[in-house]
Amino acid sequence: MKSINAAASVRPAISPTRSEDFAEWYQRVIRAADLAENGPVRGCMVIKPWGYAIWELMQAALDRMLKRTGHRNAYFPLLIPKSLLEREMAHVDGFAKECAVVTHTRLEGRDGVLRAASPLDEPLVIRPTSETVIGGSFARWIKSYRDLPLLINQWANVVRWEMRPRLFLRTTEFLWQEGHTAHATQEEAREETLRMLEIYRTFAENFLAMPVVAGKKSTLERFPGSEDTYSIEALMQDGKALQAGTSHFLGQNFSKAFAIRFAAESGREAYAWTTSWGVSTRLIGGLIMAHSDDNGLVLPPRVAPLQIAILPILREDADAVLAHAEILRKCLEKLRPWGQDMRVEVDRRNLHGGEKNWEYVKKGVPIRVELGPRDVAQGNVTWTRRDNAVRQIAPMEKFLAIAEDELLSMQDGLLQRARQGRERRSQMVHSMEEFRALFSTGNFLVRTYFCGDGTVEKMLQNELGVTTRCFPMAEAGDVGPCFACSGRVGPPVLWARAY
Amino acid sequence: MKSINAAASVRPAISPTRSEDFAEWYQRVIRAADLAENGPVRGCMVIKPWGYAIWELMQAALDRMLKRTGHRNAYFPLLIPKSLLEREMAHVDGFAKECAVVTHTRLEGRDGVLRAASPLDEPLVIRPTSETVIGGSFARWIKSYRDLPLLINQWANVVRWEMRPRLFLRTTEFLWQEGHTAHATQEEAREETLRMLEIYRTFAENFLAMPVVAGKKSTLERFPGSEDTYSIEALMQDGKALQAGTSHFLGQNFSKAFAIRFAAESGREAYAWTTSWGVSTRLIGGLIMAHSDDNGLVLPPRVAPLQIAILPILREDADAVLAHAEILRKCLEKLRPWGQDMRVEVDRRNLHGGEKNWEYVKKGVPIRVELGPRDVAQGNVTWTRRDNAVRQIAPMEKFLAIAEDELLSMQDGLLQRARQGRERRSQMVHSMEEFRALFSTGNFLVRTYFCGDGTVEKMLQNELGVTTRCFPMAEAGDVGPCFACSGRVGPPVLWARAY
Repeated sequence: MKSINAAASVRPAISPTRSEDFAEWYQRVIRAADLAENGPVRGCMVIKPWGYAIWELMQAALDRMLKRTGHRNAYFPLLIPKSLLEREMAHVDGFAKECAVVTHTRLEGRDGVLRAASPLDEPLVIRPTSETVIGGSFARWIKSYRDLPLLINQWANVVRWEMRPRLFLRTTEFLWQEGHTAHATQEEAREETLRMLEIYRTFAENFLAMPVVAGKKSTLERFPGSEDTYSIEALMQDGKALQAGTSHFLGQNFSKAFAIRFAAESGREAYAWTTSWGVSTRLIGGLIMAHSDDNGLVLPPRVAPLQIAILPILREDADAVLAHAEILRKCLEKLRPWGQDMRVEVDRRNLHGGEKNWEYVKKGVPIRVELGPRDVAQGNVTWTRRDNAVRQIAPMEKFLAIAEDELLSMQDGLLQRARQGRERRSQMVHSMEEFRALFSTGNFLVRTYFCGDGTVEKMLQNELGVTTRCFPMAEAGDVGPCFACSGRVGPPVLWARAY
Repeated sequence: MKSINAAASVRPAISPTRSEDFAEWYQRVIRAADLAENGPVRGCMVIKPWGYAIWELMQAALDRMLKRTGHRNAYFPLLIPKSLLEREMAHVDGFAKECAVVTHTRLEGRDGVLRAASPLDEPLVIRPTSETVIGGSFARWIKSYRDLPLLINQWANVVRWEMRPRLFLRTTEFLWQEGHTAHATQEEAREETLRMLEIYRTFAENFLAMPVVAGKKSTLERFPGSEDTYSIEALMQDGKALQAGTSHFLGQNFSKAFAIRFAAESGREAYAWTTSWGVSTRLIGGLIMAHSDDNGLVLPPRVAPLQIAILPILREDADAVLAHAEILRKCLEKLRPWGQDMRVEVDRRNLHGGEKNWEYVKKGVPIRVELGPRDVAQGNVTWTRRDNAVRQIAPMEKFLAIAEDELLSMQDGLLQRARQGRERRSQMVHSMEEFRALFSTGNFLVRTYFCGDGTVEKMLQNELGVTTRCFPMAEAGDVGPCFACSGRVGPPVLWARAY
């Protein structure tokens, strides 16, 4: 088995590179991988087949995890009457500024020019999230403690009007799952909130190879209407943080607003305790910024729509080469990394080899196999891993024996690499002076002890664009002298500029 | 193996029964099976977990069929600018009357009372279907004949304002898949239109056990903007027809409106030929009305979220009975009807046996196993099939050996039973007199030869509420003397009152 590092001398496929202009590089990676594009309404994106296939794999994996923990899917209406939204005031204050409002139910006119007609008595809002419409259903469904816990999830689109849209990261419409649960006791609801946070952490690390910190949000950063918000926070290659998933303990706020009451075992009537939690297509943005390089997208194999691309070189002996490629595909498809059929395709198009190859580089396919007449004659396979650009040659049986391991090691390697990147960008800071100095030089994930004073958070957000990301769960119990005030102590908190 | 017909003497669980009031029976079946309920906005339904699980099984099966025929999923925006809709006039005329129009992007106010604010320059429409927004993308994606055929599918929600809503059958918001394809030649586009119609036919019959007639719609019944519309038509137990899926040959109407052009192999520029096709949550309404009985829902096993419910009787020896139930579940779960794990659950709740049992009857679970201490002691299993209410007792090994066959035979039996029901309601009619006489006595699926005169269709719709359903594909080529006019001939067409 021979190894050649083939990519070293080639100019990168994405221009500008990450170090030249990270924000523009991000857009170019999306275009080069054909993941998504802007739709006709500002902020609303078209998710193209390659991008959507990644989302489908994420959905399938997370859906299995949700069902295994007893959650059932349902579907609630897109349109919410204004009056329903008004029932929980902290909630409506948080979302009113970004609501798409439906006011008419008809277009009318002539000669091809139409205007809105048939006004509604009460305006409707396109769901920005579904706590309010689900609250009404829960109130009907829950009568007795026997109906609890009620564990519901929904896969849906939501709309939040976005002033500064960016594909996947901030879009006016996005796809997500939103879990909504109701419990008999505060304790159970709090357990559920943390259970889902842990599912998100596991999902992000095991499937997306994206290391995250699970923690509690500060009061300022809470979800409107919640008592406590938790999140998983990832660090991107430019040192900015991405909130990748949230889990909310809603206390009895929504159950009081929507009369979600039940007869307890004692016979007494009580309000339920509720939670909600969600992840969205934003995760695809995180996936891109966590792993991709100056040649385009890099996909962790578990969420790669295609894990191995077989690229026959069709100059001579095309029939023999194609036949060999199909045999290889069939053998590979029998392998089952992570218990699922390996995803393999043969690209039979008669294109220039380099062109074909670069297409799969830019799309982030984990392993590319180039198969030419000489390989066929010698019974060899030549393959290149996307993560390290190392090209290897070995007899076909040898490749079949290690193909699964190559994927497993790439999945693991990407997680390790992202962890190391985060380490390099992580810094413990003890004073405000040090804090300001550090953030004036770039983006970091900074850990401080913090007494929790919201005015400090507001000041640093205005001054440096830096916010608290979360109080890490793993460090609960630890306290130290606050970096910002003199005298008080507080738990460790993470700070960063964030997407 | 003993058989007892246990249901014969019990009064039906659903009141009114089908023969007493079919429309009300339908609503009651939905409620008794806990499938769906009305949401806060008229016409917008909440799909409850049991209903949604059926939809997920339908989706998974159809999605596999679509992917196997080369279609890829993508996602297009919910919101469509009015101007985009206006580009294809026949299309906009067809949908303008039922569009939800977004005019504002903010709610504003104080003291808990909000009003719409931040008006949009151009109103947006919530997609009633996506030809127009997809047309723009296709125009960007397609450059050359090498990009064709382009075969795209989307799973999404759509909104069409509905004046007379009924759960599943007519809802303002519904879930569906919509396929959109572009081709280099008219012939290929026509082939695709019919290929998808055939996929829908196969899906309806093989998965939903719902016999359908595949055929072409009359000019009057065409999709707005299409050149030809095809549909699959099912007959419900009350003799009314249900259009269960449609496939449209759009000609070059949309490619001209949206400039979907490509360089042909010759180098010449040409407009693409497009198709679109869809099925929706309406199919669940069809499923209910095709198979259910006066005891509630009856589900074909292939789309039953739970295929076998094990209901332990927990009066005495509860531990032994539960242990036995779990063993049975594990053995059953190893069976793989239709190549997928059998869906089995043990209901461990300590309820009165009859109450538990009726819950699963009303939910349409194909097989119920009641397991009491005596069964355990004797090594027996007692089970009841939902389709025929026949109760059987046999040793556990015997039951395990035939459980899969029971499901297969039930799936097949439901299709046969629905076919027989359709036969009983089908009638060949040769004259207008006979036509009027027949439809004055009830609902039927009537076959006539028909010259295709639209004024006859309009007249019969106004007079009898009867419409043409389709010109059956299977009878293409046949012609006979028109039942409505003297002298002309035409192909056979089906007539019915329809949902």
